[in-house]
This record gives sequence, C-alpha cells and structure tokens, in this order.
Amino acid sequence: MSRTHYCGEVSEAAIGQRVSLKGWVQKRRDLGGLIFVDMRDRSGIVQAVFNPEISAPATAIGETLRNEFVIHIEGLVVARSEGQVNAAMKTGKIEVQVDHATIINAAKNPPFAIDDQTEVSEDLRLKYRYLDLRRPSMYETFKMRSDITKSIRRFLDNEGFLEVETPILTKSTPEGARDYLVPSRVHEGEFYALPQSPQLFKQMLMVSGFDKYYQIARCFRDEDLRADRQPEFTQIDMEMSFKTMEEIIEMNERLMGIMMKDVKGVDIDAQFQRMSYTEAMDRFGSDKPDVRFGLELVNVSDLVKDSSFKVFSGAIENGGQVKLINVKGSAANYSRKDIDALGEFAARYGAKGLAWLKVEADGVKGPIAKFFEGEAATALTERAEAEAGDLLLFVADSASVVADALGALRMKFGKELNLIDNSVYKFLWITDWPLFEYDEKDGRYYAAHHPFTMPFEEDIDKLDTEPQNVRAQAYDLVLNGYELGGGSLRIYRRDIQEKMFKTLGFSDEEAREQFGFLMDAFEYGTPPHGGIAFGLDRLVMLLAGRTNLRDTIAFPKTASASDLLTSAPSPVSNAQLDELSLSLNVQNTEK
Amino acid sequence: MSRTHYCGEVSEAAIGQRVSLKGWVQKRRDLGGLIFVDMRDRSGIVQAVFNPEISAPATAIGETLRNEFVIHIEGLVVARSEGQVNAAMKTGKIEVQVDHATIINAAKNPPFAIDDQTEVSEDLRLKYRYLDLRRPSMYETFKMRSDITKSIRRFLDNEGFLEVETPILTKSTPEGARDYLVPSRVHEGEFYALPQSPQLFKQMLMVSGFDKYYQIARCFRDEDLRADRQPEFTQIDMEMSFKTMEEIIEMNERLMGIMMKDVKGVDIDAQFQRMSYTEAMDRFGSDKPDVRFGLELVNVSDLVKDSSFKVFSGAIENGGQVKLINVKGSAANYSRKDIDALGEFAARYGAKGLAWLKVEADGVKGPIAKFFEGEAATALTERAEAEAGDLLLFVADSASVVADALGALRMKFGKELNLIDNSVYKFLWITDWPLFEYDEKDGRYYAAHHPFTMPFEEDIDKLDTEPQNVRAQAYDLVLNGYELGGGSLRIYRRDIQEKMFKTLGFSDEEAREQFGFLMDAFEYGTPPHGGIAFGLDRLVMLLAGRTNLRDTIAFPKTASASDLLTSAPSPVSNAQLDELSLSLNVQNTEK
Repeated sequence: MSRTHYCGEVSEAAIGQRVSLKGWVQKRRDLGGLIFVDMRDRSGIVQAVFNPEISAPATAIGETLRNEFVIHIEGLVVARSEGQVNAAMKTGKIEVQVDHATIINAAKNPPFAIDDQTEVSEDLRLKYRYLDLRRPSMYETFKMRSDITKSIRRFLDNEGFLEVETPILTKSTPEGARDYLVPSRVHEGEFYALPQSPQLFKQMLMVSGFDKYYQIARCFRDEDLRADRQPEFTQIDMEMSFKTMEEIIEMNERLMGIMMKDVKGVDIDAQFQRMSYTEAMDRFGSDKPDVRFGLELVNVSDLVKDSSFKVFSGAIENGGQVKLINVKGSAANYSRKDIDALGEFAARYGAKGLAWLKVEADGVKGPIAKFFEGEAATALTERAEAEAGDLLLFVADSASVVADALGALRMKFGKELNLIDNSVYKFLWITDWPLFEYDEKDGRYYAAHHPFTMPFEEDIDKLDTEPQNVRAQAYDLVLNGYELGGGSLRIYRRDIQEKMFKTLGFSDEEAREQFGFLMDAFEYGTPPHGGIAFGLDRLVMLLAGRTNLRDTIAFPKTASASDLLTSAPSPVSNAQLDELSLSLNVQNTEK
Repeated sequence: MSRTHYCGEVSEAAIGQRVSLKGWVQKRRDLGGLIFVDMRDRSGIVQAVFNPEISAPATAIGETLRNEFVIHIEGLVVARSEGQVNAAMKTGKIEVQVDHATIINAAKNPPFAIDDQTEVSEDLRLKYRYLDLRRPSMYETFKMRSDITKSIRRFLDNEGFLEVETPILTKSTPEGARDYLVPSRVHEGEFYALPQSPQLFKQMLMVSGFDKYYQIARCFRDEDLRADRQPEFTQIDMEMSFKTMEEIIEMNERLMGIMMKDVKGVDIDAQFQRMSYTEAMDRFGSDKPDVRFGLELVNVSDLVKDSSFKVFSGAIENGGQVKLINVKGSAANYSRKDIDALGEFAARYGAKGLAWLKVEADGVKGPIAKFFEGEAATALTERAEAEAGDLLLFVADSASVVADALGALRMKFGKELNLIDNSVYKFLWITDWPLFEYDEKDGRYYAAHHPFTMPFEEDIDKLDTEPQNVRAQAYDLVLNGYELGGGSLRIYRRDIQEKMFKTLGFSDEEAREQFGFLMDAFEYGTPPHGGIAFGLDRLVMLLAGRTNLRDTIAFPKTASASDLLTSAPSPVSNAQLDELSLSLNVQNTEK
C-alpha cells in the first residue's frame, strides 16, 4: 500500500481512518505489553502503538525495531486517551494502532542521536552528513533555503527577468580572489577557471539586449576559509539594462519585502535606511553596521588634540583620530581587570591600547582622568552625552584602526548587554563607496568592488589624477550587521573601462588579453546596465537563525576545504594526470 | 525619462500617448525628408519617425544614427496611414513621432547583420556571442529555456519537492565518463572532480529523509564533443523515496504534460506509450525510437536461414540475423546508384553490405532476386507486407549491426520521404533495460546506466552467475527519437551494491575506497528510492525546434571545448601552477 500521509501530518481529521506510513523509528518504548514507536519523516513525528490484541504479527515485528529502522506501518488512527495527549506535539492528540508492519530496511546504531539536543562534533556531523541532515532543525533550514529561492524566483519571473545559465568552465583572470583552475585535456598546458561570479557573462547578456537577467549562480573562490566562507557558494545574481540606481534599489527593496513576508511572515519597512560609506564608518566603525542599536562612535579628536595626554594628541598629530563609545550605565559593572580584557580584545583589531574613563557625578575617574579635569571633562561628557555611571572607552589611532577596534567593541557590547532586538530585521543600503582601495604593501590601487564598477559621472576626470577621491555608483545591502550583497552600475564605455584598467596598473596588452572581448563589446552598442548579487548562503543563515554558514549548505567543505563524506579532494591516477599533461611537484600517492 | 514600454509592446492601445523607448537601431531609411528607424529591443521592433516639422533637433540626431546604436527616444504614438500598415509586424499599425532623441551609446558596424536571415559561420557567432544573442530567434530560445525551467520548477514545488544544491567540487571516480579535475591548493597532489551528475548526493539526501529532491544541476564530462554534447550541460534532476517505478513514471508524465501545455500550448497524451528495450531494438533498431512513423524493421531470419544466398544464411549461422525495411512505393525512385549510396550510408553503421529487392507484380527483382523465387519471394513479401512498387532493403549481420544500420536507414527515409509529422510530440518510455553491457575489448561488464541501478528483484540471484540476463529497474524517456532522460530505482542495500561492484570488476578495496560512504549509509536506515534526470539542453533544443545543442546554451564551447568569446581555456601563470604544486609536461606559454 502506498503512503497515505506524512507522519507529522496525521491530524485529528484522520481519526477513524486507516493510514499507511513510511518512515524511521525515532524511539521505541515498551510499556505494559504495548510497544510505542515514535515514527519520523521529514514532516515530523507520529506515535505508532503495537498491541498484540490488535495484531500479534505486527507486534512481533514491533519488538525487533530499533532506532533508525525504516518501517512501513498501516493502522487505524485513534484519539489518544485524555492523559496521553501531548500538547507539545503536532500529532499529540492521536496515535496509530498498528495492524500491519514491515521492516523496509534495518539500521545500525547511529554514531550520534538524531535530534536537535545532542551536541556532536562538526567533523562527525560532516562525515555522517546523511544522518546529520535527518535532524529536524537541519531539514527546516533546507526547507527555508528552498522557500527563499522559490520566493525570489517568483518575484523576478514576475518582473520579467530571464533566468540564464552562465558557464562554470571559464577563463582565469588574476584580478580578484584566487581562481580554482581546471586543466584542459584538449588544449595541453591550458586551464579553465571556475567563476568567482558571473559578472562578465551577465554584462554580455546586457550587451545582447536580454534586458533583465537573473541566476541562482554557483561561484568559487580558492581562498583560505573562515566560518563564513566556503570554496563554493551561491549568489542570487541579477543584472538589468537602462535602469537607474534608484530603480534598482527600489526593485530590490520590493524583492526583499516580499521574500521576508513569504518566508518569515514579517513585514519590513518598504523603504530601507540608507547611509554613505563614510557615515557608516564614522558612526559605526563598519561598512556593514548593525543599526538595530545605538552605542555609536563619538569623535572627540577636536576636543583632545591639544591634550597633555600624549597618546591622544600624538595620534591626531600623526593624522589619526580619537573616538569613544559610551557604554551607558556600565561603569560599575566593569573592573580594571574587565577593562584590561576589553583592551586585549581591541588589540586584536590593531588598537595599541584602550583608554577609559568612568563618569561620576563630580567628574571623570580612571587612570587618564588626570588629563581631563574641569572643562575638558565636561566637554568630553557633553559630546558623549554621558551621565554618572557611564563607561567611556577610547581608541586613538589611524582612522581605520579606530573604526575596526571601536566597531568590534560596539558589536561585543551590543550582544553582551542585550542591546539588540533579535526579532527585528534592519535592512540598510550603504552607498557612495570609494571606487578604489590603496594597498600600501603592493603600492597600488585595487578596485574596492570590482573593475567594472561605474564611477560617479562627475568623478570620471579624477580617474587619472586622484583615484582615491573617485566615488563608485555602488550599493551594498546590509542586514543586521551582515553584508547580504552588493551591486553597482557598470562601466559601459570603452574609454572609461580603459582608464579603469590603467589606474589598476594593467598594461594595455594585459587589459586587452584578459578583457579585450569586454571592451570590444562596448563598441557594438552596449546599453547602460547595473545589477546586484546577494549571498544566498548568508541570507539563509540569517533567516534560519544559524551561526555557521556550513549549516546552510547540504554538503559543505571543512575549513581545510575537504568533503569529509566523500573524501574529496583525493589523489588521482597517473593515467588521469598524463592525459592532462601534468606532473605533480609532490610525491604522488596514486590510489 | 524612464522607459514606458518595450518596443515590441507599443500597441494601438497607446495611440495618442507619449512613450519613452530605449533600444537599438535595427535599420534606418531616409525617405522624402523623413527618417524611419526600426528600433529593437528583446520584445520586438517599433517604427520611429524623425520629422523635422515635429522636432528639428531630434531629426538632426536621427541623421547620425547607424545600425546597433543604442538610443532613447520619446514621442507620440500615432496610427500609420492606411498604406503604411504592416500586417506582418506586431506593431505594424502604429509608429512613434519622435520629439526627443538621445544617442546613449554608438556602435561600430557589426561583423554580421543582426537578424535571423543572414547565414553566419558558427565561429564568428561564438566569438561575438553578445551580438549573436541579439538575433530574435536566439532570444526566443532562451526565453523558452527560462519558461521550461519555470514550469518544471513550479510543478515540482507543488509536488512537495525540495530544491537542494549539491557540490560542484567533488570526488573523482574512475567509473563512467572522464572527469574534469580541479587541483587542490591546500591538499597538495590531490584533486577535486566536477560532477558528472549529482547521483550520489541525491541518494544521500534520500538517506537523510529529505523524501523529494530536485535540482536544475550543472554536470560535466570531459569527453570528445559532438554536435549534441557539451563539456558542461544541465540536468533536471530529481529523486524520491518510497515510490514505485509506476508512481515515478506517472508523476513525470504529469510533469511533461503540464510543461508542454505551459510552454508549447499543446496537449499531449496523458499516458505515454511504453516499450521494452528489446522490443524497441527489434522493431526500430534503436533504444530511442522515433515512433511518429512506421517503417519498422522486419525480421526475416527464419525465412532465409537456409537460403542459397550465403550472405543471409551465413549471417544467421554466425549467430546474427537478417532484417529488412520496406520502403513503400519507392522502388521506382531509387536507381542502382542511389541504392549504392544507401549502402555506403549503412556501411557507416557497420553494415558490410545492403541487399535489396524491388517488388513487382510478378515477383521480386534485383541482383539477389535469383535466390528468392516463387514461394521464397512470396514468403518475404508477405512478411514485409510488400506490394508492387515497394523497395526492400536488407541487412544481414550481428543483431547490433543490423539494428544500427537499419535503424539509421529508417530515420533517413523517415526524414527524406516526409513520413514524420513535425507538429506531433510522441513521448515514449523505454523499460526493461539490461543492467549490464559487456565490452568485448575490455573483457568486462559495464553498468548500462550506472552502478547504482536496482536490478529486478527476481534477477538479483543472477548478478554473480549470468549478469548478461539481469534486467534493470530503469526507464528512459524518449521524445521524437531523442533520449530526454533516464532514471531508475536505486540499490539501497549494501549486499546488492557490493555484488554490483564485484560484477563490475571492483576489488573490495576499490569499492570501499570510492564508494565506502555510500555502502556505509545503506546500513543506517536507507529508504527505497529512485529518480530521473532530464537533459535540459536537449529538451530546449527539441521544443525550440533547434538542431544544434549550442544554440540552447548562452555561452557554449566549440567542438574543441573552447570558449571563443573569452578565450578559455588559456595559459596560466607559473605562480598559479606553483601554488598548486603542478608542472606541465608541455612547454608553458606563460601569459
């Protein structure tokens, strides 16, 4: 008999019906001659009762069941007696009186319990990923992932976007992150690269007049991994022609609004907050600020520039700045030792020290209080909007160290002091980005986003002369302190693209060899275009309330880029290498 | 002013309105002081008229326009005068009186005309793919591709399938086609492989209880290419648990029915024809027969086994067979020379010769007629249901050569004699496949589908003893003579999977090393499961009426696996190779 219901969906409406269920043994209890089995499938759990008075053969099978056996049962749905009702369970008012039972497949005792309570090492989870994914919270995460893409696809389909697939075997370009390479068998000594994004192909589609493109696209970066990075990741990637930045932003606000309603059932602001990159760095010390709480950075450089406290005045003399955060009402809660620990935390972000003052009714206290007496103290506390009981933490350094260290401290206090309302989703656009970043070590400019980003029209003349002051027509979307994605208007004129490559240090020949097709395309009638890409894995992580990106990917890699389930990567045969005209510079451990 | 309409959508309803259009110059004609511009975007073409009496500045711009310029125009929509109406054009009853015009981007003269009439070499099309994709029929193909995936996704979403992404960086397994390899930087001397299909991962998801999975999945094979093969291709991939073959087939018939209705607007049979592999080979000489026409193969082995024509009787003595096709009414249309040419055609499929007879009122004629006189001739013509004027073509050889050669001849006549109704879509399931194919050259069995296919229950005992007689619980879907895809129930028990690997010649160690995780998984409670995968590229090709798979892929590779647009593959730097601990066995042409 085919399955009539999923386990979790046998409701009171089915009382009096015979059902046929297929699923896994979650738990078996023997009690007073009866056998109770919690039977599980992706939808949830239902209680099956084996009673020799109903069926002796079925009960004999019930006696042999162990956890994770795959079984098929048939039986009558009955109401549980009053005392047996389990209100915490979706199917807690009913049970199934088993009259037929079959073991479809037996199971060994699993290496860890299939539930959301048991703590399991991540390596074990990844090795037995097929068991890990049986845990209800994991299934829920992938259900949500599926729902998110479904919602986004429906929106983009309705908006007239065409889903187009772009190549995975593509060309290596040294600009950007490190490529994964794929040796060619046909073209000896040559390589494909896996794409870091479909950027150039989606631009080509705009040149083709496709007008609106999207793709849920796999992307690849061979970079050292962190908890929020994977070798392959998924982007919600889109591009459109003839649209202004305002139009692109407005459409994506509607997209996010509908998706949040579909997936989380919440209404978010129709218009998102916007902030320039400069303002975000200034107020929050971050280009992806969590604006669900205050605790903003306060610039006191002007107040302390002539201070006799040389750490402050010296930093400013060296072109740096002095900022503080005011941890309201926390003076009494932080001992010297606690603050020393905060200093160590700040040091991880490059701060050479963490100065502090405790505000009291009659002035400020602490080791550096002697430098700030009378009016100096008043000026500081007024600027910091501080009152008695507040703790002021200062960092004096280059602007970027101040931002990093105080920005990180701000986030730390936000969490520890419960300043953040976790039920709130605060979307935020960051705009007015610099087009370039200067790398001191390499002595050259890099593209802050990518080399195809359109500068502000009025800044185009500065590409040659003062690249550090060129602003980009770029926009990042931030959610609760995480970068969800970023986009920009693109360069669509050959002369600007050539200038861009020149500023990035490309010779004419290098530019032509790597991006000649793009610049050629610009000469055959290219429309203005722009787009955006969102990180799907991170979006799922945030909406599913996960903290590890790996929990949002069905078969992720470890921090050393291994798949513990299938044992990839692995050695290959010499015959395979020969076909590719490759030799290893290491001992081959041929399999 | 933002765009108000797509060009092809300015209809009579817009008469009297001012519109704002952005698009490409398809063609410009100057006539009697006016300038007529056919303006194009993805939706089609509209006529814009530049008239100095309406706007002298706009007309001055109109005079500078050339093909493929990107322009923005604004103006009033007016009805064309009676004589100017173009009924062949969607927008042929109206035109736009331009009062404002801007050149957004100029264009060089393209290397080929942007229309569907001009013949262009494929290399040139691929090099300038961004121009090739501007051709209306190309856009229509990708629109259809997008519509097909949209329809299929909607169906599978409604059926409770979960879309799950599986890895692209995975493990190399020597069984099957050649893998594309990706060297690992972190694990020196080791490699990932790009997946030939998500087969094992989708099976793992079934072990996880995900129950119903689908993915529009990119797959990769490093094989020598033909017109209908690409290094990367896309599968509509699905898998489900606890379903019988009948249930899987029935669901996929509904899927195809809805998709055909959505995309082509046609109603197809609710239940598809079914045929065993043996019957298909026997009647049509093909495992993917086009059943839109007859011209079936007729077995005459029993009639000719004692013939004095040694080619026939000898073939049967050697264990082969003799079959014919009856080309109705064609005797008069094929000269000896024509038939010699057919013989050369058959030779490409391995036939050593093509015997023939022309049926006349008083017997059969032709070089071998002397062997078939009186009753022998009658027996043949009766079996062939032949009458005067028919042409009988015979192949005598091994069963596989007979099938290949006559199957190919059948298709050739089907096309040349217009026996095929191209408006018809005939879906057909091929079932009862052999589980193995024996390779004479390698002296071993290979899996006819893949090593995870479930044998018929009643054949499991034959895995060890007579593998050639084991049938597979596999099913292919054929549309109009093309294999759309194939699927099977899968092995879900360790003992059967072990037997399977053994028959395929794996040592225990090899099986464990490559597929240990799969066999382990089978021991932790694996449900019975099965699925299917369809080739999306081929499906698009058939429904869009294309003959070249490359026309269904936005950025395809050539027959030598090159991307002519971006010049991939390409040499990489020695630094990149060093990081991967690789050396080339060929001269490095470092870029």
